[in-house]
Amino acid sequence: MDLQNLRLVDHHVHGAMKEPLDRAGFEKLITESDRPVPPWMSTFDSQLGFAVRKYCAPLLGLEPHASPDDYLAARSRQDANRIFLGAAGVSDYLVDTGHLADSLTDVGELAKLSGCRTHEVVRLEAELEYVATQESTAAAVPDALVRRLEERTAGAVGLKSIVAYRYGFDFDPAEPSPADVLSALDRWYATGAKRVADPVLLRWLLWTGARRGLPLQLHAGLGDTDLQLHKVNPALLTEWLRLVEPLGTQVVLLHCYPYHREAGYLAHVFPHVHLDLGLTTMYVGARAAAVLAEGLELAPFAKLLYSSDAWGPAELHYLGATVWRRAVTSVLGSFVDQGDWSPDDAARGATMWGRDNAVRLYRLS
Amino acid sequence: MDLQNLRLVDHHVHGAMKEPLDRAGFEKLITESDRPVPPWMSTFDSQLGFAVRKYCAPLLGLEPHASPDDYLAARSRQDANRIFLGAAGVSDYLVDTGHLADSLTDVGELAKLSGCRTHEVVRLEAELEYVATQESTAAAVPDALVRRLEERTAGAVGLKSIVAYRYGFDFDPAEPSPADVLSALDRWYATGAKRVADPVLLRWLLWTGARRGLPLQLHAGLGDTDLQLHKVNPALLTEWLRLVEPLGTQVVLLHCYPYHREAGYLAHVFPHVHLDLGLTTMYVGARAAAVLAEGLELAPFAKLLYSSDAWGPAELHYLGATVWRRAVTSVLGSFVDQGDWSPDDAARGATMWGRDNAVRLYRLS
Amino acid sequence: MDLQNLRLVDHHVHGAMKEPLDRAGFEKLITESDRPVPPWMSTFDSQLGFAVRKYCAPLLGLEPHASPDDYLAARSRQDANRIFLGAAGVSDYLVDTGHLADSLTDVGELAKLSGCRTHEVVRLEAELEYVATQESTAAAVPDALVRRLEERTAGAVGLKSIVAYRYGFDFDPAEPSPADVLSALDRWYATGAKRVADPVLLRWLLWTGARRGLPLQLHAGLGDTDLQLHKVNPALLTEWLRLVEPLGTQVVLLHCYPYHREAGYLAHVFPHVHLDLGLTTMYVGARAAAVLAEGLELAPFAKLLYSSDAWGPAELHYLGATVWRRAVTSVLGSFVDQGDWSPDDAARGATMWGRDNAVRLYRLS
Repeated sequence: MDLQNLRLVDHHVHGAMKEPLDRAGFEKLITESDRPVPPWMSTFDSQLGFAVRKYCAPLLGLEPHASPDDYLAARSRQDANRIFLGAAGVSDYLVDTGHLADSLTDVGELAKLSGCRTHEVVRLEAELEYVATQESTAAAVPDALVRRLEERTAGAVGLKSIVAYRYGFDFDPAEPSPADVLSALDRWYATGAKRVADPVLLRWLLWTGARRGLPLQLHAGLGDTDLQLHKVNPALLTEWLRLVEPLGTQVVLLHCYPYHREAGYLAHVFPHVHLDLGLTTMYVGARAAAVLAEGLELAPFAKLLYSSDAWGPAELHYLGATVWRRAVTSVLGSFVDQGDWSPDDAARGATMWGRDNAVRLYRLS
Repeated sequence: MDLQNLRLVDHHVHGAMKEPLDRAGFEKLITESDRPVPPWMSTFDSQLGFAVRKYCAPLLGLEPHASPDDYLAARSRQDANRIFLGAAGVSDYLVDTGHLADSLTDVGELAKLSGCRTHEVVRLEAELEYVATQESTAAAVPDALVRRLEERTAGAVGLKSIVAYRYGFDFDPAEPSPADVLSALDRWYATGAKRVADPVLLRWLLWTGARRGLPLQLHAGLGDTDLQLHKVNPALLTEWLRLVEPLGTQVVLLHCYPYHREAGYLAHVFPHVHLDLGLTTMYVGARAAAVLAEGLELAPFAKLLYSSDAWGPAELHYLGATVWRRAVTSVLGSFVDQGDWSPDDAARGATMWGRDNAVRLYRLS
Repeated sequence: MDLQNLRLVDHHVHGAMKEPLDRAGFEKLITESDRPVPPWMSTFDSQLGFAVRKYCAPLLGLEPHASPDDYLAARSRQDANRIFLGAAGVSDYLVDTGHLADSLTDVGELAKLSGCRTHEVVRLEAELEYVATQESTAAAVPDALVRRLEERTAGAVGLKSIVAYRYGFDFDPAEPSPADVLSALDRWYATGAKRVADPVLLRWLLWTGARRGLPLQLHAGLGDTDLQLHKVNPALLTEWLRLVEPLGTQVVLLHCYPYHREAGYLAHVFPHVHLDLGLTTMYVGARAAAVLAEGLELAPFAKLLYSSDAWGPAELHYLGATVWRRAVTSVLGSFVDQGDWSPDDAARGATMWGRDNAVRLYRLS
């Protein structure tokens, strides 16, 4: 099975870093940790670091497994963004614009650099926080949020929630009453905080997002020190998934590790639940085939999506795709070798996972 | 290692579907979801669907990996029940009769169709619900339940609880007082509900069942949308397991995925805990060896049981056994190949798992 | 890759059994269960039991896979402690002396028998319980505990907590106030109990331990019937880890199974978190490579440690090292074979894991 020519839809990604990166700067971007790297270790000594040296080094003219210093030196002499974005084999990027920094390419720049189609995914929490900067009274927020989401999603293909980071999935699943929302908005306005972290507001956002009809992406599983991992097990969403099911909105669980089996189960029993193993795949590097295979246990094959969740060095946009292709080739190839799958089914399954499911879900064509 | 001639004891199974099945009907029975299948997907595009096409198609005279339509067409021209039940290589079926439908074979019909010995496993919740239809006052229920269980278990080999579906495992583990039970019965009678879902009644049933002395099976892990997966992690049963341990009753954890490692741990530390990976094994299809291997980490080999948990198409009775045989051959064969197990130990371990442990536990001979 | 000559640092271990062992006695020491072994099973029928027969039998002059009776007979005629401790290939043992029994070697005896350097790890709960036997008033305990820990850690390399066994990780993460500690001490003194199980005291101990500056080991994951497995998932420590991070103390998560992926995540995002898969590795036997590989997904390679957690028969000191060497050779070798790691990186990674990380963390040289 050859997936080199399968043009992937990367359904959840961020911008590429525009600025040059020295070794310390690069090391901070190949870890999910937001903490300083201790002086006695290097983030290159990790599965992702080894994957950079193995798969990215040759594109910079180096031998595989080049040393970190050689790698950064070669990188500094070349246009890494064009090289890695050009080599990823992606046709469409769905860009989460809620975690933008001035140092990152925006949607237009990413399109130009990569030569790909780009589409926007709107982050709910960022929109509420924006509305709050515009409205002087809490009472004006609910209507303003609906208007803002209408405007922002006019050209977007999906919504995204990071309730995982702000609270976790152990929230009251019911839609809050308008009165409860108003009280929570009042409390938030009274604190003067920019960041929305109140569970009533977060679940109101989720419900408001679900009512827009667009596919709704939820960060689940691994992230940085801001979250408590056991609280972002997607199984905790079960009752909320039951409650929003009648709306017809499709829910997409992102990353999911180490709860990707729970995510696969939810995708199995709930028609409106989909999942990816984005971020996870490149971070586990040499273990990607083993981890992706676990995601292939209960999940119906029509529910699997590909993403890199790259943010920062364009190596990550490339590695997301490269490690995924290698791992899927390995896993589905082993199913064929052991006689369980036919070669045709394997090729079809890989195409569903890497491209067709996303085209259908996000109505890309 | 050749397990073709190992006659399995399928210690947890249901009846076979008596009626013919069209494609839509068949698709609904090869998923654990109780929801309509979305029009943009097929449940054949799953590990279980691929296993049907690979392993069942040849028994209907088709090539492996036949298309779903060809498969259903061939199936409709033959006696699928006799073919698949006859080929499963099972000597004994232990039938959970609490989830019977008119469309399914009962214990006697299953015995006749399969040529196997059949034994009954009595479902606790169904018996309490039956008693409630017979007793006009709540106060009469406790004595009536004990009498009913005495009658029903006279010829049965085990009991079964679906507290996982009705509430989850996060219940108060202590045996409820008679007064608490009476209050709960009064509340239940007052609602007029047929279905028992009150946690006091459910744990009273568990305790009452445990006092019968027969092995007590508990659904754990994957099921349909009725349950919350993280609440049916068998580790949540720890305190209850400690409390019932002095009764001497053997507890059997069914399915367990994705918490089969937790189940293996419980079987390791508690003498009265056993487990299977029934349902799981066939649902994960090409991944069965990988998943069963995880169940073989901590569980003492005398604690492992085989089941299909088949319900509906007789393909499932056959696939449970077939996928298990292939997976066990693969896993134990790899242990032998890497030098960790002797071939004799592998053969003995497989026989314990597939047959001998169940014969001993349920006193079948 | 040949790890035979890699001298391991076993950073968490206990003493070896001094007395001879008959079959019943030996069977009780190759299980984590504290219950009598049921008459219908043998603990030799387990991954650890098979590993004893495979890897230890040849050192007693037997064929691999010798029967348990032959094994115990050969063992009784030889000096098992010298044989297995001598063959483990360990340079340094870090001995947890809080779980000592008269029947076990103490630190000095272990050094003499093994020819290794030994270092002490001081168990917090045991020290508080000792202080309580010395102080007649609860009010004297806080100062006495600090003095006792100063004395006991003068020559020690680390501290250890078994809060996992005494309560679980779902405790209030904040440091308790002196008044709360005094109240809790008063309550404890009033009960007359020797064993400390009060969550206020246990977390006060954790905080007091963390303030000592030495690496702090925490039992996590599998153990005996005393713990509730889901309550010792190290992800539950997240908030506590955030709170103690400013102290600069390094935290080491021990064993971790089946939550080693959660532990790897914590080691990834928190600079002060390290982990091992001790105890787990030998207990899962033929599955050790598969389990260790899961620990290698997110954990930075500078955060991995080796331990046996052996307690009792010296076979366990030997098997911890032997199964680890085989498994690491297999896992890292497969990464090299699939092209993801270079051979040099694999050798370097194994040395970090088995030796160098511990030397740095515990300042052994």
